[in-house]
Amino acid sequence: MSAAVRRILAITGGVGGAKLALGLARVLEPEQLTFLVNTGDDFEHLGLTICPDIDTLLYTLSGQANPDTGWGRREESWHCLDTLAELGGDTWFKLGDRDLATHLLRTEALRSGASLTDVTAMLARGLGIPQRVLPMSDDRIATVIRTPAGELAFQQYFVRERCAPEVIGFRFEGREQARMPAGLSELLADTELDGIVICPSNPFVSVDPILAVPGLREALTGAAAPVVAVSPIIAGSAVKGPTAKMMTELGVPRDAVAVARHYGTLLDGFVLDNSDASRLADVEALGLQAVATPTLMVTLQDKMNLALATLDFIASISKSAIH
Amino acid sequence: MSAAVRRILAITGGVGGAKLALGLARVLEPEQLTFLVNTGDDFEHLGLTICPDIDTLLYTLSGQANPDTGWGRREESWHCLDTLAELGGDTWFKLGDRDLATHLLRTEALRSGASLTDVTAMLARGLGIPQRVLPMSDDRIATVIRTPAGELAFQQYFVRERCAPEVIGFRFEGREQARMPAGLSELLADTELDGIVICPSNPFVSVDPILAVPGLREALTGAAAPVVAVSPIIAGSAVKGPTAKMMTELGVPRDAVAVARHYGTLLDGFVLDNSDASRLADVEALGLQAVATPTLMVTLQDKMNLALATLDFIASISKSAIH
Repeated sequence: MSAAVRRILAITGGVGGAKLALGLARVLEPEQLTFLVNTGDDFEHLGLTICPDIDTLLYTLSGQANPDTGWGRREESWHCLDTLAELGGDTWFKLGDRDLATHLLRTEALRSGASLTDVTAMLARGLGIPQRVLPMSDDRIATVIRTPAGELAFQQYFVRERCAPEVIGFRFEGREQARMPAGLSELLADTELDGIVICPSNPFVSVDPILAVPGLREALTGAAAPVVAVSPIIAGSAVKGPTAKMMTELGVPRDAVAVARHYGTLLDGFVLDNSDASRLADVEALGLQAVATPTLMVTLQDKMNLALATLDFIASISKSAIH
Repeated sequence: MSAAVRRILAITGGVGGAKLALGLARVLEPEQLTFLVNTGDDFEHLGLTICPDIDTLLYTLSGQANPDTGWGRREESWHCLDTLAELGGDTWFKLGDRDLATHLLRTEALRSGASLTDVTAMLARGLGIPQRVLPMSDDRIATVIRTPAGELAFQQYFVRERCAPEVIGFRFEGREQARMPAGLSELLADTELDGIVICPSNPFVSVDPILAVPGLREALTGAAAPVVAVSPIIAGSAVKGPTAKMMTELGVPRDAVAVARHYGTLLDGFVLDNSDASRLADVEALGLQAVATPTLMVTLQDKMNLALATLDFIASISKSAIH
């Protein structure tokens, strides 16, 4: 356990971020850790409200994640999906039988008037997760992918088109009306909050939607706790997902420094992979503190090690010294 | 095949009625046969619109019915339900993984504005069922069970309370606003319609809800084709379900004749079980034609035999001779 910090807010998307989230959950006491999760990928499918990043996080934290696919539940079966196919229904989004229980409960609770925050807490309890898991907003914000051929809803781009279309930009539909989830402002004002970690998720489609919630970026910047991001890019590649491909398409250098520059003044510190240690000075030139450490997370021990290294880094940062 | 009749409308509820429905489907050409199905049992569960009687009929006709339970699909799995239980969700209604596909497709299509008639036709097509299957109405009518302790929604009574509460009456909520499904009036006016069969379903909670659709009973009575019911009571007992128990609680004699009397002037003919042949005269005393034949349907051949006997009976009835 890390005694160097008291409370931590971890901002995360799906797979990549969830790995560090699990590491943090293993090295901190449950009450020390709150997660703030991207909901820009959320969508309606077969009448069900599906929250891919929340589900990936919940399944990862509860040990239910499918280690082979990176999404969905382990020991999953597909009888409903097979039957949907026989009946002529849509099957491009792979709904497992066990996974369906999550979507059914969530959808029913939302229809009954519960907030996504409450529904997420209920699901987390049901999965035996003691940490607090907050959606980025109870209001609907939908990430829209802009391509030369027009706009695509996120899941259309990500699942149906398998990230093939060229990306020229993003839009976060509904952001103007969205509000931060209940409890987030209080946490950010909490004098025991010692750090805010941006997990190694895709900056454009996992973290930026969170930062697009009105007032949220400013609230993070205004918090006394330092904001530290962990690079999702290692030696010019993303471990998983379209981050590196998007950077190329957007004309951004495909490296960790570009990620640090993308977050800009939001950050106080940046965690690079050891293989990118030669770029430490480039990150520091942006006015950030920087550290290099192994960031590739394959084993649980990798995840815990990166969590501990990130927490040590946070403890070493004196925000007042920077600002 | 029966050459004696041209077109037949079969009115049915769930299990008992579906057995004769299958027999009729096997002895008639698909275009000769239309089903009109009870939807008074329909309900919302976990946000899904579930139509138990339509599903039992569709699964029975497509060979997908579970022969052991009398409801749901064969070769069913329960991974979603097990997971719902783990998450603390409602599990009193047993949703199988394959069965869920039906409810998901139906619910989504209804939400998109499709009528229950269209949705049912879509599901029937998906299951390879060539006959026309009509819900009793596209509008919602909910069978409510009146008990000394108050009213119970049908599924509460039937599934949750396992038919234990004493029944003192019924109410068909929403019936005032309901209309007959599109196409039914045309079928009833069709000069090729040679008979209307009321399958051996529960008269109170499977057939009466259908007859409660405004204008439907009158339309049946007004049709040129004879209306014939097959007794769901054999030697004072119901083969399955609470029919006999309800008759006792309602103070009605627990026999086939009481069923004929219950339908009253709606009927032109009544089919008794051979074991009740001694009551033929009592049925005829009600002004009905009557016939006794084996009505217990265990094998497929039993179902086809009863279908053929019923069609022969219909062919023998000259409605004009009675009225």
